[in-house]
Amino acid sequence: MTLTAASSAQALASFAAGQSWAEIPAPVRHQARRALVNIFATAIAGCREPAVEIALGVMAPFAGPATCSLIGRGERRDAALAAFVNAMAANIHDFDDTHPETIIHPTAPVAPALLALAEIRPCSGADLLRAFLIGAETACRIGNAVAPSHYARGWHITSTCGAFGASAGAAALLGLDARQTVWALANASVQAAGLVETLGTMSKSISVGNAARNGLLSALLAERGFEGPPGALDAFLRLTSDAPRPDALTGRLGTEWTFATNTCKPYPVGVVLNPVIDASLQIAAASGFRAAEVEAVHLAGHPLLGARADRPDVVTGRESQVSAQHAIAIVWRRGRAGLDEFDDAAVAETLAAGRPRVEFTDEPSRDPASVHMTVRMRGGGVFEAEIAAARGTLANPLSDRELEQKLTGLAARAGFTGDAEALARAVWGLEDAPDAGALARLAAG
Amino acid sequence: MTLTAASSAQALASFAAGQSWAEIPAPVRHQARRALVNIFATAIAGCREPAVEIALGVMAPFAGPATCSLIGRGERRDAALAAFVNAMAANIHDFDDTHPETIIHPTAPVAPALLALAEIRPCSGADLLRAFLIGAETACRIGNAVAPSHYARGWHITSTCGAFGASAGAAALLGLDARQTVWALANASVQAAGLVETLGTMSKSISVGNAARNGLLSALLAERGFEGPPGALDAFLRLTSDAPRPDALTGRLGTEWTFATNTCKPYPVGVVLNPVIDASLQIAAASGFRAAEVEAVHLAGHPLLGARADRPDVVTGRESQVSAQHAIAIVWRRGRAGLDEFDDAAVAETLAAGRPRVEFTDEPSRDPASVHMTVRMRGGGVFEAEIAAARGTLANPLSDRELEQKLTGLAARAGFTGDAEALARAVWGLEDAPDAGALARLAAG
Repeated sequence: MTLTAASSAQALASFAAGQSWAEIPAPVRHQARRALVNIFATAIAGCREPAVEIALGVMAPFAGPATCSLIGRGERRDAALAAFVNAMAANIHDFDDTHPETIIHPTAPVAPALLALAEIRPCSGADLLRAFLIGAETACRIGNAVAPSHYARGWHITSTCGAFGASAGAAALLGLDARQTVWALANASVQAAGLVETLGTMSKSISVGNAARNGLLSALLAERGFEGPPGALDAFLRLTSDAPRPDALTGRLGTEWTFATNTCKPYPVGVVLNPVIDASLQIAAASGFRAAEVEAVHLAGHPLLGARADRPDVVTGRESQVSAQHAIAIVWRRGRAGLDEFDDAAVAETLAAGRPRVEFTDEPSRDPASVHMTVRMRGGGVFEAEIAAARGTLANPLSDRELEQKLTGLAARAGFTGDAEALARAVWGLEDAPDAGALARLAAG
Repeated sequence: MTLTAASSAQALASFAAGQSWAEIPAPVRHQARRALVNIFATAIAGCREPAVEIALGVMAPFAGPATCSLIGRGERRDAALAAFVNAMAANIHDFDDTHPETIIHPTAPVAPALLALAEIRPCSGADLLRAFLIGAETACRIGNAVAPSHYARGWHITSTCGAFGASAGAAALLGLDARQTVWALANASVQAAGLVETLGTMSKSISVGNAARNGLLSALLAERGFEGPPGALDAFLRLTSDAPRPDALTGRLGTEWTFATNTCKPYPVGVVLNPVIDASLQIAAASGFRAAEVEAVHLAGHPLLGARADRPDVVTGRESQVSAQHAIAIVWRRGRAGLDEFDDAAVAETLAAGRPRVEFTDEPSRDPASVHMTVRMRGGGVFEAEIAAARGTLANPLSDRELEQKLTGLAARAGFTGDAEALARAVWGLEDAPDAGALARLAAG
């Protein structure tokens, strides 16, 4: 294939318009189901956050007839607003899935756009899964093509690439042809925005919500003949990456699935802290360990661990998600590491009760998913834990059962009025469901 | 003032929240009125273009109660959709105003956001004018701060900077304080998008429409406490400019008004062609001139003229807006240079009838607004015209009466059902009007 200026969008469009469900490998299909279980979990957890509540209030006068479900809220809004709000909620704790190559969260922008569409344009479960995989693969591949400088320079990759992903997925679900799909991608290209600078503030949620909403609208516009140029995606790649790799975007499309490496988080923290939490839990369970008698903790990890997570003095829940000192302290106090362990109250608790002294040793050859923790006790004793691959990584993924538990646990915490176990079962059986819209309604509660 | 990382947004916010109407110089106030007359003209001209019609159809299921006017269409939609559609229409022919320093079109994103807001939050004409000037100044100053690399690299400056302008203007009209205005600008920062690559396609209109809609929503969200970081605007400057100049953004804010240099176009063409059209009209009126006997045309102009407008073989209306050969031919055939002279039919006419041979000589010391045209006739005669400053430039602006004629002429062409002369009068008298929303209703027709 020739990689001319216009080719990235055209290659993606041929893929989106032509990819058959039957030819998608079973493990890839299963990743789609896992991503949906996970996104329902995180959206139910996030659906009553202040940013979501404010957005719903402000948007109320600008919303059409309520045809689509708001996950976890038992309410409905129009498709564009439902896509917007569900995507915001799904990503608001950064507890949604992670594509390890770029740390993009692919599902939050894509799935909400398609779930909303499935309620206004009836389709089968297999149709939804196929479109979702096309959208998620599009987001991840564009992410790969602009990495690493895109995020490093300051673009919020989940939002920017997510708009294209939602657009490609919606185009696939609408059955657009390749020419229309090129238009849909162009319509997304002028709406791809989002800044790393806004992480930790409400503003971030706007761009994640917009990625879903605007991706959906991009495809609906294209369906009616709203046209754009084939070179827009490549222009976006050039503008937002120091060294774009269009081959990463278009190579072996439909044959190799980068989304097959997608991962789901066990803990609502920055990815570098996952092995630290595993080690803390392991040591907490060791016979004779008493947190009150710890003198110091030593962490031997990838250099990113110390660079990102050596934050002894954090004071907000948001900051605590990247503080090794808080993470270790709260895990030793509570024996768990869920959302409640990284909110403002938990931070106040470890601030008042004290956090361990933590020393870091950089070991550049280490996998970032690994850590060696050594805990020196006042009495002279030592506890050690070696985590080779943290839970939730590719090498040590959450099991399907653990994903279900993430869903049921977060649903219980949120006071979800629906049946979380039935929701999980519906996702596992989605391939055979005649009406994908029923899934969205089940998720509303 | 110290230009720290967070300061651009904070400086703009202090300006937006604190600028009094009384202290804005009279000539700047008059530029606001001129910009509104001009934007009503171009929005009425563009309000039934296919991109607008498709967008209205696609958005119909996602629209709330119809409270705000669609310029030229005699219809109403919710405020967000009205802002979106009116901005699309105003800019769709690129016949809207131009800030010469960056060629940004400042009014299309800003005014529609504020006109919609004036219909749901009653305010006076002076309130609207003040907010408009704050928004337009914000858009132009951010444009100045990221120029020239921003547009040169491929960002559609009208859309990107327009989102901030609409946001600042809406914040001012809502009476937000400086802290809330910082949030509004941050909320806009994650929605600032648009690509030069999409010029000439429908996709471009999405980002112009979004700039108005999203700027408005950014301020409405901030009003309810939806917060974002003070550094977001500066992050945007760094990301989208090779050499951002925050001093151009914040220097002498409220004392010097860069919007004072705003200009309005007499012809719907690329700015380099304005003097060529003036010269063609002048020669057409010369005694004894017969276009059929022209042997060749010679243009001595700024190097940009030849670089941009030497396009002898254009076949679409869109391309004809930057073709010297077509422009000269159609002016000599029809004696005028309006929208009808740059559509597909006009292009087909000059393609069939023949276009003159045009030679270009680059004169780097020339003002881009000037040209010397020499026309050699077959019989040996020569006609010459020297245009020192094209109509519509700062040195030779359209008069207020000519702006009114642009409005009434485009209204007549569009079959406007309202009273264009009354609309113009309402703008000239807006400073004393108790209800700015009445102006939007008058513009609907």
